[in-house]
Amino acid sequence: MQWADLKADEISGLPKDETIVVVPVASLEHHGPHLPTGVDIVLTSEIARRTAVLTDPHRPVLVTPAVWSGLAEMHMSLGGTITLDLDTLHAVLRSICRSIVRQGFGKVLLLNGHGGNIAALGAITNEIGSTLDIAIATTSYWEHAAERFAAILEDQDTIGHACEGETSMMLALAEGLVDRDKFGQAIGPDNPTVADIAGPAVLRWRSFAARSTVTGTLGNPTRASAGKGERLLDAAAESLSAFLRNDAFWNMSY
Amino acid sequence: MQWADLKADEISGLPKDETIVVVPVASLEHHGPHLPTGVDIVLTSEIARRTAVLTDPHRPVLVTPAVWSGLAEMHMSLGGTITLDLDTLHAVLRSICRSIVRQGFGKVLLLNGHGGNIAALGAITNEIGSTLDIAIATTSYWEHAAERFAAILEDQDTIGHACEGETSMMLALAEGLVDRDKFGQAIGPDNPTVADIAGPAVLRWRSFAARSTVTGTLGNPTRASAGKGERLLDAAAESLSAFLRNDAFWNMSY
Amino acid sequence: MQWADLKADEISGLPKDETIVVVPVASLEHHGPHLPTGVDIVLTSEIARRTAVLTDPHRPVLVTPAVWSGLAEMHMSLGGTITLDLDTLHAVLRSICRSIVRQGFGKVLLLNGHGGNIAALGAITNEIGSTLDIAIATTSYWEHAAERFAAILEDQDTIGHACEGETSMMLALAEGLVDRDKFGQAIGPDNPTVADIAGPAVLRWRSFAARSTVTGTLGNPTRASAGKGERLLDAAAESLSAFLRNDAFWNMSY
Amino acid sequence: MQWADLKADEISGLPKDETIVVVPVASLEHHGPHLPTGVDIVLTSEIARRTAVLTDPHRPVLVTPAVWSGLAEMHMSLGGTITLDLDTLHAVLRSICRSIVRQGFGKVLLLNGHGGNIAALGAITNEIGSTLDIAIATTSYWEHAAERFAAILEDQDTIGHACEGETSMMLALAEGLVDRDKFGQAIGPDNPTVADIAGPAVLRWRSFAARSTVTGTLGNPTRASAGKGERLLDAAAESLSAFLRNDAFWNMSY
Amino acid sequence: MQWADLKADEISGLPKDETIVVVPVASLEHHGPHLPTGVDIVLTSEIARRTAVLTDPHRPVLVTPAVWSGLAEMHMSLGGTITLDLDTLHAVLRSICRSIVRQGFGKVLLLNGHGGNIAALGAITNEIGSTLDIAIATTSYWEHAAERFAAILEDQDTIGHACEGETSMMLALAEGLVDRDKFGQAIGPDNPTVADIAGPAVLRWRSFAARSTVTGTLGNPTRASAGKGERLLDAAAESLSAFLRNDAFWNMSY
Amino acid sequence: MQWADLKADEISGLPKDETIVVVPVASLEHHGPHLPTGVDIVLTSEIARRTAVLTDPHRPVLVTPAVWSGLAEMHMSLGGTITLDLDTLHAVLRSICRSIVRQGFGKVLLLNGHGGNIAALGAITNEIGSTLDIAIATTSYWEHAAERFAAILEDQDTIGHACEGETSMMLALAEGLVDRDKFGQAIGPDNPTVADIAGPAVLRWRSFAARSTVTGTLGNPTRASAGKGERLLDAAAESLSAFLRNDAFWNMSY
Repeated sequence: MQWADLKADEISGLPKDETIVVVPVASLEHHGPHLPTGVDIVLTSEIARRTAVLTDPHRPVLVTPAVWSGLAEMHMSLGGTITLDLDTLHAVLRSICRSIVRQGFGKVLLLNGHGGNIAALGAITNEIGSTLDIAIATTSYWEHAAERFAAILEDQDTIGHACEGETSMMLALAEGLVDRDKFGQAIGPDNPTVADIAGPAVLRWRSFAARSTVTGTLGNPTRASAGKGERLLDAAAESLSAFLRNDAFWNMSY
Repeated sequence: MQWADLKADEISGLPKDETIVVVPVASLEHHGPHLPTGVDIVLTSEIARRTAVLTDPHRPVLVTPAVWSGLAEMHMSLGGTITLDLDTLHAVLRSICRSIVRQGFGKVLLLNGHGGNIAALGAITNEIGSTLDIAIATTSYWEHAAERFAAILEDQDTIGHACEGETSMMLALAEGLVDRDKFGQAIGPDNPTVADIAGPAVLRWRSFAARSTVTGTLGNPTRASAGKGERLLDAAAESLSAFLRNDAFWNMSY
Repeated sequence: MQWADLKADEISGLPKDETIVVVPVASLEHHGPHLPTGVDIVLTSEIARRTAVLTDPHRPVLVTPAVWSGLAEMHMSLGGTITLDLDTLHAVLRSICRSIVRQGFGKVLLLNGHGGNIAALGAITNEIGSTLDIAIATTSYWEHAAERFAAILEDQDTIGHACEGETSMMLALAEGLVDRDKFGQAIGPDNPTVADIAGPAVLRWRSFAARSTVTGTLGNPTRASAGKGERLLDAAAESLSAFLRNDAFWNMSY
Repeated sequence: MQWADLKADEISGLPKDETIVVVPVASLEHHGPHLPTGVDIVLTSEIARRTAVLTDPHRPVLVTPAVWSGLAEMHMSLGGTITLDLDTLHAVLRSICRSIVRQGFGKVLLLNGHGGNIAALGAITNEIGSTLDIAIATTSYWEHAAERFAAILEDQDTIGHACEGETSMMLALAEGLVDRDKFGQAIGPDNPTVADIAGPAVLRWRSFAARSTVTGTLGNPTRASAGKGERLLDAAAESLSAFLRNDAFWNMSY
Repeated sequence: MQWADLKADEISGLPKDETIVVVPVASLEHHGPHLPTGVDIVLTSEIARRTAVLTDPHRPVLVTPAVWSGLAEMHMSLGGTITLDLDTLHAVLRSICRSIVRQGFGKVLLLNGHGGNIAALGAITNEIGSTLDIAIATTSYWEHAAERFAAILEDQDTIGHACEGETSMMLALAEGLVDRDKFGQAIGPDNPTVADIAGPAVLRWRSFAARSTVTGTLGNPTRASAGKGERLLDAAAESLSAFLRNDAFWNMSY
Repeated sequence: MQWADLKADEISGLPKDETIVVVPVASLEHHGPHLPTGVDIVLTSEIARRTAVLTDPHRPVLVTPAVWSGLAEMHMSLGGTITLDLDTLHAVLRSICRSIVRQGFGKVLLLNGHGGNIAALGAITNEIGSTLDIAIATTSYWEHAAERFAAILEDQDTIGHACEGETSMMLALAEGLVDRDKFGQAIGPDNPTVADIAGPAVLRWRSFAARSTVTGTLGNPTRASAGKGERLLDAAAESLSAFLRNDAFWNMSY
């Protein structure tokens, strides 16, 4: 169920202990020469929607509109990007979760759709969870569906940026916004990654302009297809729906 | 043009001095028994979209996704509502406008679609304008199109809340989300207004639960029709498009 | 009654449910070549004082000292001006109102005397009212006494800036601080206003240096007289005193 | 000179390098049964005024209106008190000083008139001085004129609270606001002081309700007289005027 | 080199482009019945020290004192714990890094020694890196030395909490602070973990009192030994020293 | 007792009403050519430790690790210095004290070891004390032991900066970090002090680079000796221990 599509009385009438409120958190940012800046918003919203459709017969799921601007400082120098700072993202999610709690709900998933948000959402989830004393979790859809995604993708193991995976899903959902003629100019990165140079345990500040100087992308969209995209979207929704129906998790002590 | 639908290079390629960036600011809140909570988001986004369509042939207009949560504390006790606090709304709009400026644009309209945001957007517009040194303005669509709206509406002079006007526009855009059977239970307010008691110059803190104890509405949806709604949406867009094409305004010294 | 003139025991002894605390909010700013920078402080304080004198026989009114610095960024470039930023004005009024509430009072009027404060006081009133759960309202004296003022003023309908109205009231209260020789050089504005160009529904950031490049004023002080000023001051106080005695308003549910 | 009494052009015309801007910082708080809550505002403003009168022939001194609310949490439980929190006092003084600097001035004195402000003004002076890179100092009038005051006072060495000294100065300035009949009930404290128990080097949080449970005062007003008050006011002004004329101080490197 | 042990001139004399400043970030928190609350401070400081010793011959490394309080809300209910909130940790690290940059250095490692800090340090590293425009990275010592640690540890693959690993290192460094008699009562957790229930991609707010209700630990200290501890400390230092000497990393564009 | 050396259960087992938690607050800053930057951390920590040793037989004293970065903006231009801003120091101490209170303790001493912190700690002590409603005090060790110190020191009455006193104590504790060859180049100040020019009642913003242009010091280290240092450390601890055992103080109403 979409929060924004329901009458207030319908929301108030939901079983408060059962319902999980899903807050998609995305970003509006440069996505190479071939994809629109709204990719993360489109994908995260759609995955949240499909997840709710799969889950609602078993447990009510209420999806808020997507927080469409996240932490995208890394893309700012490439154009087309809007970013919040960390304190503001924290403040927005705190206000949203506080409102959710005041409406009587106590189970929240911050569903992430943008790599640059991962660390911040982890920190913010802990801060909000302890302050509001609620069952709150966060995950990124491609990390949650990692095995399913690896089985579908051919050129990469997981989602990069404006890559085989994101391009496939956009072809499935909004082909008109995708420019196939630019696929050949959209392959990246052309610089070694932090992991290449320093291994997987190091996180450092690094712009996408430095990671991928020509295209700002991480991946190869020429390997994308609408069919793959449809399978990825469903795989994410299935993975997340199983998670939302995991009573052992949502009833854990905290 | 919708920012989120464009590739980053298309945004970067716009004439920076000419383009006006429109940021719709809405709310997710109780809208009576007959309308969904997302009314302000739907209407403000659609009016911004129509405004851009009318204006783009003359001057590029770039519409960001709607800031979908505003100042809705007044509706919190009625259910279905999410609200930001004043400092958070300020922080969000400051981050968004700062990003817009860093992308090279210098003309911004904060297009308001929720009564509870009016005062805050006035104050925030001044604060952001002087801090970022840009041409920034704010207006509420129903105030900007006040004369056109008065000519279309029959039961009221302007937009109330979940009223003839909002219900008409929702019938035009998303009839499936409107519950006509509840129209008769949706008429409000049942208490005198602040203006009734103290005249038009006084603003006071007052919840909608106090203003309209039964329905939480201000207006009469039984007077609504999809045809009126379509005319209202076009009227708002025409009024705002004329404003965006008003070179004398956008080139004023400030 | 002036809070600062009373002993603490006298304040504590007031009937807490009946008493209204009035907080004048003004500004210290450029007021043309002929008026001192303290105009808004002098006028708002005096109007609050006269309002209390008229009201005290009917209902206790406690007037705090004026918050003498408001949002005057618009005047900064013209000299003689001190301004707060929005967050600071909010913080100051929150501290003051919280103290008032902790002293047992629950009815507050933020009486505004400066145009640049209007939007902010509206937003802050809502924020403080809901947070502290009190009956709090705001109005600007010239808006509250709009009809009375229109009947007295000859050159304008309402208060501008350093105009017929403000100059008249300063002549009545502090003639020694007014420079009549400069009246002829104090007429403004010389640029069209936002309303001239874009109608009444648009608010934009605009400095007074841009509005009125030569004088920084809005109005014509050559039409001022002490007699008019005295009538304006009394009219404001009468209008506001009626408002403070309006039991239906102060006992409204909120 | 009083900032608020000058036209903006007069302020802009002052020699920026020479002029010292004095910002009186006071408090609105319980002052025993015999004195009004505004004592600190009245005294600090008057001492600043007299100081400017003495100094202006030698060096321009510009006195802003008094920041009338300081850190008075210690008096809150006794009634009649309004307090800021530390962050808000910091924010207010930062906004004021930033405005002063933007008007071209670079020498500022935060003239303190309330014991509870001393530590905060020390910390804030350093913070503002380094941030704005200006010559900024703070002193409390009774500490600056300590020797002169000791010579005048009979019952105490320095200013307490609502004591011989403050009562004398109020008798000199606003006898009508002083209640002589309550002098006998206004003697305090009745509890040992922190210094009595732990020596002069310890500062601790302690309310005035704990320090002086019956009267909330520190001192003996029965020893007050208007003549002493007049001498104290002049002594403070003479001491401070010598300080403002101390070129070696105001031209020190920092 | 330890910043605190050097004279200021020695610090100023270091080659600014070469030197890496290491800021250990730890926590003061419950560590089971057998370990002192300062474990993370002791270990992170010592690992930083050993890392610098290994690295200094090749590249100057300057180690600040440890930020000894981190995000330990999860341990608060178990006693002995001090925690910062997220905004405060951000503020502290921002102040420290800003000072480091003002002293001329541009390469910083936030060396983490507490699991609860990981997400926050990731987010803060990005925020500080982009704001100050420096080469800044973060890693947790046990994640960086993951392979080395897995080879040394017998009961677990990596560091838990008050476990084989932490207990071993404390035996090596401060045996007198370790209570061997309590090892048998220190084995945890007794509840399934989030990963057990929901897989590795989910992060949720959860206290250690819920994770490990009896002991508050994650691991088995009976498997600890001082010898293992010494090897772990050296392994961490060797791994990190290789990282600090990785010129390709520290000279990467960002 | 050192908090960090105790197991959590040992801390939880302390008599909550009796125990005093001591939080040393120091600074990491330029200390002349002869002393390391960590002087204030070393001395404050050691004095706190000795104080606890003397006091524990009579009353439990729990010493947290030192807050090692304070307000040292005054030393920044001389190198080797890290500083917090006022708001951050406030936030850190608020988080620490809030955690202390949540662990059940209600008596706190902020033991200061850096002149630049004095004013801020005074203000913060009041703010925290009233907010958390605890018995909290602050003192600087050299001010508390003023008489004892004056009897030991030969060249000065109290502690300056990198002077006879600080150098003596460092010789006693960490002779290897002291460079005796630089003593002759470490004498300061070479400029008159604020007190020289304006008397003791004035506080102003002034960097140490301006106070002591050549050495950044206040005092004469050639008069230092390890023996004096040992006596100073003991004197401070004895003075403070007497204070911590002063039941009349710690049981005062507040």
